[in-house]
Amino acid sequence: MYHKLRRAFICISPSLNLFLTRKQSYFFPCSGLRRPMSNTAGLVIPCTAAVAWEAGKPLVMERVEVAPPQAMEVRIKVKYTSLCHTDLYFWEAKGQTPLFPRIFGHEAAGIVESVGEGVTELQEGDHVLPVFTGECGECDHCKSEESNMCDLLRINTDRGVMLADSKPRFSINGSPINHFLGTSTFSEYTVVHSGCLAKINPLAPLDKVCILSCGISTGLGATLNVAKPKKGSSVAIFGLGAVGLAAAEGARIAGASRIIGIDLNPNRFEEAKKFGFNEFINPKDHDRPVQEVIAEMTNGGVDRSIECTGNVNAMISAFECVHDGWGVAVLVGVPNKDAVFMTKPINLLNERTVRGTFFGNYKPRTDLPSVVDMYMSKKLEVDKFITHRVPFSDINKAFDYMLKGEGLRCIISMED
Amino acid sequence: MYHKLRRAFICISPSLNLFLTRKQSYFFPCSGLRRPMSNTAGLVIPCTAAVAWEAGKPLVMERVEVAPPQAMEVRIKVKYTSLCHTDLYFWEAKGQTPLFPRIFGHEAAGIVESVGEGVTELQEGDHVLPVFTGECGECDHCKSEESNMCDLLRINTDRGVMLADSKPRFSINGSPINHFLGTSTFSEYTVVHSGCLAKINPLAPLDKVCILSCGISTGLGATLNVAKPKKGSSVAIFGLGAVGLAAAEGARIAGASRIIGIDLNPNRFEEAKKFGFNEFINPKDHDRPVQEVIAEMTNGGVDRSIECTGNVNAMISAFECVHDGWGVAVLVGVPNKDAVFMTKPINLLNERTVRGTFFGNYKPRTDLPSVVDMYMSKKLEVDKFITHRVPFSDINKAFDYMLKGEGLRCIISMED
Ligand SMILES: NC(=O)c1ccc[n+]([C@@H]2O[C@H](COP(=O)([O-])OP(=O)(O)OC[C@H]3O[C@@H](n4cnc5c(N)ncnc54)[C@H](O)[C@@H]3O)[C@@H](O)[C@H]2O)c1
Ligand SMILES: NC(=O)c1ccc[n+]([C@@H]2O[C@H](COP(=O)([O-])OP(=O)(O)OC[C@H]3O[C@@H](n4cnc5c(N)ncnc54)[C@H](O)[C@@H]3O)[C@@H](O)[C@H]2O)c1
Ligand SMILES: [Zn+2]
Ligand SMILES: [Zn+2]
Ligand SMILES: [Zn+2]
Ligand SMILES: [Zn+2]
Repeated sequence: MYHKLRRAFICISPSLNLFLTRKQSYFFPCSGLRRPMSNTAGLVIPCTAAVAWEAGKPLVMERVEVAPPQAMEVRIKVKYTSLCHTDLYFWEAKGQTPLFPRIFGHEAAGIVESVGEGVTELQEGDHVLPVFTGECGECDHCKSEESNMCDLLRINTDRGVMLADSKPRFSINGSPINHFLGTSTFSEYTVVHSGCLAKINPLAPLDKVCILSCGISTGLGATLNVAKPKKGSSVAIFGLGAVGLAAAEGARIAGASRIIGIDLNPNRFEEAKKFGFNEFINPKDHDRPVQEVIAEMTNGGVDRSIECTGNVNAMISAFECVHDGWGVAVLVGVPNKDAVFMTKPINLLNERTVRGTFFGNYKPRTDLPSVVDMYMSKKLEVDKFITHRVPFSDINKAFDYMLKGEGLRCIISMED
Repeated sequence: MYHKLRRAFICISPSLNLFLTRKQSYFFPCSGLRRPMSNTAGLVIPCTAAVAWEAGKPLVMERVEVAPPQAMEVRIKVKYTSLCHTDLYFWEAKGQTPLFPRIFGHEAAGIVESVGEGVTELQEGDHVLPVFTGECGECDHCKSEESNMCDLLRINTDRGVMLADSKPRFSINGSPINHFLGTSTFSEYTVVHSGCLAKINPLAPLDKVCILSCGISTGLGATLNVAKPKKGSSVAIFGLGAVGLAAAEGARIAGASRIIGIDLNPNRFEEAKKFGFNEFINPKDHDRPVQEVIAEMTNGGVDRSIECTGNVNAMISAFECVHDGWGVAVLVGVPNKDAVFMTKPINLLNERTVRGTFFGNYKPRTDLPSVVDMYMSKKLEVDKFITHRVPFSDINKAFDYMLKGEGLRCIISMED
């Protein structure tokens, strides 16, 4: 009886269900009908985007045209996006290559509107997180268990176009508008390479999990995937921005018994209190290197340290404050080009390890769904990172909050 | 029946066998009798030692008196010893703190003559390797799975005395002679802390396995315990002395498919050919940094590198020549005090790892017996490291060979 039913079930919807895994099919329960194509598929979509016309000038809400996805691309309807420092840095373009007009935004959550040729793993209606780095699945990095630095889709901050044809999918009256990090989520619709989209549990609230697509996963993964503190161990976190606080959240989840927060800005300590720190240190309060202060407090050094500042002195301190014999320091912050990491080799020889990580060593497509699931199962706390919310039309307020150093993450809602 | 026999077996030799594991008892099968004490136990032993009276001057064969072992110490009859660079450095004392008269020697194999109070894990007749670092079993390092840098017995090159009473056990006509590295194996008898003795398979030939007590295990462990190359991976080895060649032996055992040897001295390449290298590079043959040469040869970098030179430039090259995403560099060489390891942080952020190791991360008592067993099971080749043999009376010849850079290891036989 059971077998008969099952066979019938498969037979009536061969085109839709045959190649779907159980997980993939939970959004569209088999109805016996082929799912209707989106009625915008294949067409240019006019919509609203926040365009940066000039470095450091407020974004302007514009009507833009979004071309259909080409081969291996996906067009998504962005539901929520949030602002990350990387957007701000490239918008300010102090030091970074200026590329304008441009549509910023790379922390977001959305829903697939249509897919381009050759895209088999995503379809209309899938809930997705766009990611600034990708996973082609074919290169040496994608095939390595250890790396997430895909040769094809690795972050490229200077590229303003799509890979397929070296052109943008955005235009205003026929004039091209540059993409940012292959995501450009400050737009109601955007086109993203399918390798840069993580398909997530459709029950996850998009206005929360949108922040898992960049900084939070970076800090969390730096701890859980790279530093890997054991239960009961001590962890020092340098830099208490969103990334460092996410690293602390990782330490809490891993069961660290002592979490020490280090920041030059004492205002950060108040907000950080929600994140399970046992102590805070401001290097400015001491007249010797902070690594010595930490070594003294911890009987020789911490078991793990995670640097989330981008400052090379903090990187050196983070390395030198780990215990000899077993200490591991993980570097996350993106340094200035001329910075040099320096240390006496004896610090290494005494069995210390230093390693860097990119996006917390998460492979976007393979691993991000499980980060969302960590939130769904209440292991990972996300709400404490969300300090502000604005409608899309007020996106410049999110920039103001960040410029003033107010709060952690501001959620920008596309539909309010 | 079986049970009865077993009970009887235990009953007739309670003092000897009750606390022995099966492994510990294989040398002295239960005879029902307490093993007789050595007839020198508790007495001062006069014997021959090669004493270094002055920096850089030939050793002098002297009659020395070796006091009995104190609490937690063991007196051993040295059977074979070999010369390592560390002996030479401290004998030359160019830069190192001079401490004379002194009995050098730390690579050796011997047999326990008698044990001091509180020593329960070793007894007369046990075959042992003395080691320049130890394992007290009690400190945080000994308890950590990751570290072998015992707080109590960690290498101390400036100490010329035993820990128990801060006095040496060697004297000539009542005048004290300094120890070296707690081992001083250039003597027919020596006293060593029990935590610095690895009890090994008594079937192992001591004239071979003596070289496993320092440099060979250091290089081998750097690869097998720390770099851990996967089968089929590429490994670069900087410095083709005994330590680097042992690292290459580790790479061969691990199944690396491409082993690249780098040395400034092209004379090293000939001897190295027995060690499974696929290619050799002399950095002097290139007008750009050797890490660039290696990256080009290997499509982006090697999977693992192991630095065995002590030169900080080689350390930097070794780090920078590993592949992004997954590369791991292991530093083994002991650098000069003023050296500074420098690299751009981006090299780390691109998911490279650098870590140092001490004695190949082997815990001397726990792990060295298994290194000897690797040799016994023919997995590890030791003979190719042994290029010279001299009787004890010709020990200065061993120094000459090393000063001339001839060969790898010279075995000094105490009884010939
Ligand atoms: N590797 C990646 O994949 C990745 C991804 C996202 C962000 N990042 C980087 O992570 C870093 C942190 O990001 P964020 O958004 O949390 O930044 P943030 O600016 O909010 O926080 C950085 C904090 O570090 C503190 N700080 C600066 N120098 C310090 C020092 N010497 N000692 C102690 N504290 C110091 C600052 O006061 C600040 O509170 C940035 O460098 C960012 O570029 C890396
Ligand atoms: N960490 C430990 O526990 C431990 C134990 C034993 C030895 N060591 C150290 O390991 C190192 C190697 O020991 P060894 O006995 O094999 O020494 P060795 O002198 O026989 O060999 C070193 C080799 O490195 C080469 N070299 C030097 N500078 C170089 C450079 N810039 N690039 C390429 N090659 C270079 C030399 O030509 C030489 O052939 C030493 O520094 C020694 O002190 C460390
Ligand atoms: Zn890839
Ligand atoms: Zn970001
Ligand atoms: Zn110890
Ligand atoms: Zn040695």
